[in-house]
Amino acid sequence: MGTKVKAIISGTVTSPQGFLAGAVKASIKSQEKLDLAILCSEKPCVAAGVFTTNAIKAAPVILSQKHLKNRSAQAIVVNSGCANACTGDSGMADAVEMARSVAEKVGLSPEDVLVASTGVIGVPLPMDRVRAGIRKVALTKEGGHELARAMMTTDNFPKEMAIFVESKLGGFTIGGVAKGAGMIHPDMATMLCFLTTDAAVDARFLKSVLQKAVNVSFNMITIDGDTSPSDTVVILANGLAGTETINSRNGELFQKALDEVCLHLAKCVARDGEGATKLIEVAVEGAVNEAQARLAARTIASSPLFKAAVHGNDPNWGRIVAALGRSGAKVNENQLDVYLNDVCVMKQGSPVPFGKKELSTSLSGKEVSVRLYLNLGEGKATAWGCDLSEEYVTINSAYTS
Amino acid sequence: MGTKVKAIISGTVTSPQGFLAGAVKASIKSQEKLDLAILCSEKPCVAAGVFTTNAIKAAPVILSQKHLKNRSAQAIVVNSGCANACTGDSGMADAVEMARSVAEKVGLSPEDVLVASTGVIGVPLPMDRVRAGIRKVALTKEGGHELARAMMTTDNFPKEMAIFVESKLGGFTIGGVAKGAGMIHPDMATMLCFLTTDAAVDARFLKSVLQKAVNVSFNMITIDGDTSPSDTVVILANGLAGTETINSRNGELFQKALDEVCLHLAKCVARDGEGATKLIEVAVEGAVNEAQARLAARTIASSPLFKAAVHGNDPNWGRIVAALGRSGAKVNENQLDVYLNDVCVMKQGSPVPFGKKELSTSLSGKEVSVRLYLNLGEGKATAWGCDLSEEYVTINSAYTS
Repeated sequence: MGTKVKAIISGTVTSPQGFLAGAVKASIKSQEKLDLAILCSEKPCVAAGVFTTNAIKAAPVILSQKHLKNRSAQAIVVNSGCANACTGDSGMADAVEMARSVAEKVGLSPEDVLVASTGVIGVPLPMDRVRAGIRKVALTKEGGHELARAMMTTDNFPKEMAIFVESKLGGFTIGGVAKGAGMIHPDMATMLCFLTTDAAVDARFLKSVLQKAVNVSFNMITIDGDTSPSDTVVILANGLAGTETINSRNGELFQKALDEVCLHLAKCVARDGEGATKLIEVAVEGAVNEAQARLAARTIASSPLFKAAVHGNDPNWGRIVAALGRSGAKVNENQLDVYLNDVCVMKQGSPVPFGKKELSTSLSGKEVSVRLYLNLGEGKATAWGCDLSEEYVTINSAYTS
Repeated sequence: MGTKVKAIISGTVTSPQGFLAGAVKASIKSQEKLDLAILCSEKPCVAAGVFTTNAIKAAPVILSQKHLKNRSAQAIVVNSGCANACTGDSGMADAVEMARSVAEKVGLSPEDVLVASTGVIGVPLPMDRVRAGIRKVALTKEGGHELARAMMTTDNFPKEMAIFVESKLGGFTIGGVAKGAGMIHPDMATMLCFLTTDAAVDARFLKSVLQKAVNVSFNMITIDGDTSPSDTVVILANGLAGTETINSRNGELFQKALDEVCLHLAKCVARDGEGATKLIEVAVEGAVNEAQARLAARTIASSPLFKAAVHGNDPNWGRIVAALGRSGAKVNENQLDVYLNDVCVMKQGSPVPFGKKELSTSLSGKEVSVRLYLNLGEGKATAWGCDLSEEYVTINSAYTS
């Protein structure tokens, strides 16, 4: 398999052949904004999903998991403004009706339709507006951009991209859209993300390739340590590009391309965390193993104290080390080296003097990098997060009121 | 053993017989405030401690653990403004010197002196000022109040109390002081707390009674999910009240009294979390077992999204359920009942309509109560936390700069 990968940053989830989308303002959100969208493939797709690990699952998650059991799907309906979570039996009936309405609209069976809802928890969907909205949606080739906007809640910008890959198996495109921006934490699929490809992909391989891509991307970002009952990452593959069937034996490049799309979208989610002004990258090397490296990187990236310090350009690196220490990863303090924006602040467990003003100035940029060398083994991992601002609190102190 | 317990709220760590304390402004803090203090017993004490579980331990923690190996101690020296953590070999030398200086001052051996430091991590102690400060401290019977102030960092008020207990074994007093106010999270001893008693207590029993008291108090509070390398809870018992020796066979009332002191101080710490305006109490009943109840209560009390909602008086109860779901405790959504400030918002997994304005008004008080009934078993636990305010971020975005 060749290795030519060409990213189309202006691309979106409808960039692969045969995918259409559309969105409307259905008045589910209190403000007059796009809040309901449909993504649809012209042909049946093999499909796979990764969902929230929260013990409380929103009705759309339970329904979509059920509809994915046969490893196929052809459409996704998504709304923002209401998560349809913690809504009891009537919430499940509403999710079922959403799938049925879309199926009728585009001529599918309800089992071919996946459902995703994001927004306030514990409030029933306004189904009259949802029904009217579904009827109004017009599906077009450019509709992916509107869909990316319709799934936004407190997101500041839509997150979307597409990538074109030339390979010996044939050329294909992978597109994706995602939304954040709060209740984002690893150990689960994290937020909503829809991926599409026109490659022909073996159904079992599609699930495994998706899980691996999620593990290095969405499962390595954190915004606030909270995890949503609605988290969903779904991929649809319709085969319209006419490639050979991609499977575990020839799928290396497909994995690489999917990782790239997921990583780009995940970093967009981290960068656009609620109230965030900076992207934080935490790279851990030399941990006992990869699992401990992941744990350490994610714990540091989610420390509210470190995140607040980054917000204020305060080179308070002690908080990095304190978070590392509580992460559960093995640490020998006297073997530990720490770099903040490429400045060594701790070497073999002892503080290294540094220019505080210079480092503070460098921390005022849009991206902050933390590197730790544990010098214990070969484990390494990278996590992404964002700073913690007063704005995060302001957003979340009056979300429903 | 009798059960008469009389709390002395104006009391402090020097209320039990034979304890003296004093504090000075040693200029360790950048502002001119009390920042160095000594607590001392006139007689040798049996002693026990519970320390941070962070893999990175501050030098004073390592030294105090060593000095407690013989289960005895007679003095504690504490400073704020600098944690003497992540300071390498010279940091350990500084802690050793602090113990030695205090030992010389009050005529003890260095092994009888415990050391605690709180403040910025990764910065060496200004030892010239520490030495001068130790020389200046005057030990008095009323000095506990000054000590409570000297150990404060971002705390808004000193945390202290004493309790007088009449029992068949003889009357005795337990006193205590504590400080918060950030990097506070369970699974460890959490912050600094010094406890004293004039009861005669068996040394092994003292350790077990302290661990139990910490488990229901300091280990059940959370402010920000971060844990300090300096967390220390220490108890000194000098026997001067002339009670019979209290041990595991007759110590029920002592446990009860110590629990009460620890619980009062722990709730003070939670209430005075950095930027906090409210105390949040989360009570979980009907979990599969106590461990799961503790997990659930602590996860909810530490959810930044729920904490931010409480700050804004927003009855966004879905965030309670979302945090419960990610806690790891077993939950059957359709058996779950949730009460927010005594208003039922979810019954058997379905939302219950409630007066949003009335509940919002009730949430504007100084204490917010959450009760969850999982209806799965007998496990119950209570955790305490505080709201998340813009002020928390402001405090922590410029702590060292």
